[in-house]
Amino acid sequence: MTQANATTEPTPTPVTVLGLGDMGRALAGAFLAAGHPTTVWNRSPGKGGELVERGAVRAASAEEAVRASGLVVVCLVDYDASDAVLEPLAGALAGRVLVNLTSDTPARSRQTAAWAEKHSLSYLDGAIMVPVGVVGSAEALVFHSGDRAAFEAHESTLKALGEPATFLGEDHGLAAAYDMAMLDFFYGAMGGLVHAFALARAEGIDGASLAPYLNTIAGILPPIAAYTAEDIDSRTYAGEGANLAMMAASVDHILHTAKDRGLDVSQLAALKGVTDRAIAKGHGPESWSSIVEVIAADH
Amino acid sequence: MTQANATTEPTPTPVTVLGLGDMGRALAGAFLAAGHPTTVWNRSPGKGGELVERGAVRAASAEEAVRASGLVVVCLVDYDASDAVLEPLAGALAGRVLVNLTSDTPARSRQTAAWAEKHSLSYLDGAIMVPVGVVGSAEALVFHSGDRAAFEAHESTLKALGEPATFLGEDHGLAAAYDMAMLDFFYGAMGGLVHAFALARAEGIDGASLAPYLNTIAGILPPIAAYTAEDIDSRTYAGEGANLAMMAASVDHILHTAKDRGLDVSQLAALKGVTDRAIAKGHGPESWSSIVEVIAADH
Repeated sequence: MTQANATTEPTPTPVTVLGLGDMGRALAGAFLAAGHPTTVWNRSPGKGGELVERGAVRAASAEEAVRASGLVVVCLVDYDASDAVLEPLAGALAGRVLVNLTSDTPARSRQTAAWAEKHSLSYLDGAIMVPVGVVGSAEALVFHSGDRAAFEAHESTLKALGEPATFLGEDHGLAAAYDMAMLDFFYGAMGGLVHAFALARAEGIDGASLAPYLNTIAGILPPIAAYTAEDIDSRTYAGEGANLAMMAASVDHILHTAKDRGLDVSQLAALKGVTDRAIAKGHGPESWSSIVEVIAADH
Repeated sequence: MTQANATTEPTPTPVTVLGLGDMGRALAGAFLAAGHPTTVWNRSPGKGGELVERGAVRAASAEEAVRASGLVVVCLVDYDASDAVLEPLAGALAGRVLVNLTSDTPARSRQTAAWAEKHSLSYLDGAIMVPVGVVGSAEALVFHSGDRAAFEAHESTLKALGEPATFLGEDHGLAAAYDMAMLDFFYGAMGGLVHAFALARAEGIDGASLAPYLNTIAGILPPIAAYTAEDIDSRTYAGEGANLAMMAASVDHILHTAKDRGLDVSQLAALKGVTDRAIAKGHGPESWSSIVEVIAADH
């Protein structure tokens, strides 16, 4: 930061980053780049030298690191690791805001939130949705959930990681839940993507020839996601155009084409099984979205 | 068409359309709209009245229909149906170009191509990649494969269905193979899409809130398809950034989150199985694309 302008630039907020793995270092680097006095700590020594060169202060202990700042960000390998670091720090964290950007399940986020509540700590649980190299850029999507007042107090600082900083709601599990749901779609698509290239290879089509057409498919997904969301939220699955029965027949068609070529069809067979169960429940004339009633039958 | 201009507008080519289901009628309508004299025929009578009103000629028999045009397009429910219609027409089809836009497997396309070759017929096998309502528009993707000279002779006429008319190669199975591969990706993505909404529902997130973030995921797929294609074609799977082992752990993470909520996890379990088998073959440090070596192990 150059000369601060009181009317447009917020006062730089001291930030502490616990955990200096690849992601932790990226977070600390983004805070430094935005002009925040940054204190760092890592359980095993020797990490973060480049951050110290850029002006970060290396704390001798986790507690010393926590006491250096009003905003404490933790990013470790999983919640077993972050809980182990945080448990002894409840006293030091009092009166500060804790932001846990460790990636894990919604259940673990809520468990840590319960611990924070027991100690009357201000707690935000977040999820970083981009690779390390993108952290700190305008395209960096970072989710936060939990203590709304804590988020609002530190939103401008958290924007150093990516804009906008996104607050999803007061359930501390929401950031992880959005993370899981997005990855659920991502890996479904990535499984289908490679299976498509595999089928093409078996049919004598090279990947470079197929890729542009797969991108045509990717391009039609956003409107489909929008009307699927309407079906899901209204729990009504009006089958306009192609219905589930027709689409399931198409899945079966692909499955047999792939099987004839000796491909592994376990992914297609699982999907076919879901559609079969949905059709058995009477959803055949409805939309594809109606398979949600099989996948999440208890919800 | 208004006044024809010999230098810029091709002479309208007479076209015959066999099969007047929803798609057949759309095809005939597109040829009529482009000014081509169009003859239509359907096995069961009473279909296509609106086409006749627009100027189409209804033939009394399939053979009469075929003999009316140099370009004969067939679009029926499957290849059992189209083979049954075409078999007795080999004599009438001699010296004309047959374009089969019926949707089926690459194997069935190649089988019909063998029949056409036996009778020395010019044969194109195609696939219509868009819904009925889109046929005839600029966005309508229609694939052709097989007899290149026949395609080149009729390309301008076939553009009435959608531009550009796309010729994929001389293997008659290619149009159906591209169709299957694109749908393989599509249904993988559609399976993941609804599973993501299901997981969100179980976590208290409505579809409308999640949908924009799923579109963020859809947006990152095209560059991934491009570099996946490079991996697939070179059969080298350099794992830069996240490798298969890390991504498989993420799949397992989602699987357990979904299972904890009582969701059907058969799709995720199948995908996890594929990644497990790939890791067992030593692909863990490589890229996600390396699962192709499990899916298409024999190719």
